[in-house]
Amino acid sequence: MEKYLLSIKKKLEHLAEADIPFDDIKMLTSNAVITNYTSDEYFLRSGETSRKVGFVAEGLFRLFYTDFVGKDYTKNFKTTGQFTGALASLLLRTPSRLNIQALENSTVVCFDYDAILQIAECSFSWQRLLRRFTEGEYLEKEQRESDLLFYDSKERYQNFKAEHPDWDKKIQLRYIASYLGMTPETLSRIRKNL
Amino acid sequence: MEKYLLSIKKKLEHLAEADIPFDDIKMLTSNAVITNYTSDEYFLRSGETSRKVGFVAEGLFRLFYTDFVGKDYTKNFKTTGQFTGALASLLLRTPSRLNIQALENSTVVCFDYDAILQIAECSFSWQRLLRRFTEGEYLEKEQRESDLLFYDSKERYQNFKAEHPDWDKKIQLRYIASYLGMTPETLSRIRKNL
Repeated sequence: MEKYLLSIKKKLEHLAEADIPFDDIKMLTSNAVITNYTSDEYFLRSGETSRKVGFVAEGLFRLFYTDFVGKDYTKNFKTTGQFTGALASLLLRTPSRLNIQALENSTVVCFDYDAILQIAECSFSWQRLLRRFTEGEYLEKEQRESDLLFYDSKERYQNFKAEHPDWDKKIQLRYIASYLGMTPETLSRIRKNL
Repeated sequence: MEKYLLSIKKKLEHLAEADIPFDDIKMLTSNAVITNYTSDEYFLRSGETSRKVGFVAEGLFRLFYTDFVGKDYTKNFKTTGQFTGALASLLLRTPSRLNIQALENSTVVCFDYDAILQIAECSFSWQRLLRRFTEGEYLEKEQRESDLLFYDSKERYQNFKAEHPDWDKKIQLRYIASYLGMTPETLSRIRKNL
């Protein structure tokens, strides 16, 4: 665990835009568990009610829904240095609609969300951190939703490439297409023309 | 202002799941302004950078985007007893992509978001309240996104009717159709068949 403390601390401080003492990080990680996921293994399956939040120490995950006719929709990807989890399920304490699956062999520091809530119940700075974390998740969602309206397919792919230059080497194109709200055929055509 | 304090207090306590002293509500509302909007008038237009959050004391607003070909998409409605505002724009301090327009004559208590942030910077309970508010906004978005995948058009309309029995008398059907992710023709057909 020791070797991940610094990257967790950095990530949280970036979220909080404030210093977080090492003691707080140690308290947070005292009940955390390091779990390895092989490629294709699930961090969480839809229908499960989970209380865990993961810090991706190394690896890559796809978050996706399967709709009422069995088609799957990529909601997001989470990679090294990011947190992952089914926030709606955590907040509502209901079964997750979301699946979270490793796209490569990955290592995750798994926290108990209730333990985090408990720390936050008597700490201004953890309360503030949770607020900023949720704001970040909100912004990510809203940004993506409005990007689908404000940019055409080509622009969306170009923005994606600019933000994640290496992801289309790591991620199957059909998943990227689904994430960007286009068909795999459209994505192939765009990539060929660029 | 006095006559709205109790409903603002109730709404905030519902969000916080905790008591909020009247003194706090008075502090919050000390710089607030009551503004009337006639039907069709804008609370906020896309492109504007606004620092205001509104408590809808009475009325109904539509939040919508206009996409890159000029088509409009209804994101949400906010009605009496709810807060409204362009959260992404408030958080990022960037021009809003969202339009917020009154669908009927409305009265709004307008707060300065920065004043709220200032109060929260030295208060555990306001920090917690902001966190829970953002969580609520997040859940609303995620719920809607996944409802579009998990329910067919008819089910989405039935859920909408169950949640807001009077809204299809108040809101133009093309806006409801857009909110529910279907064409006005599909919505008309569904309503006829029910």
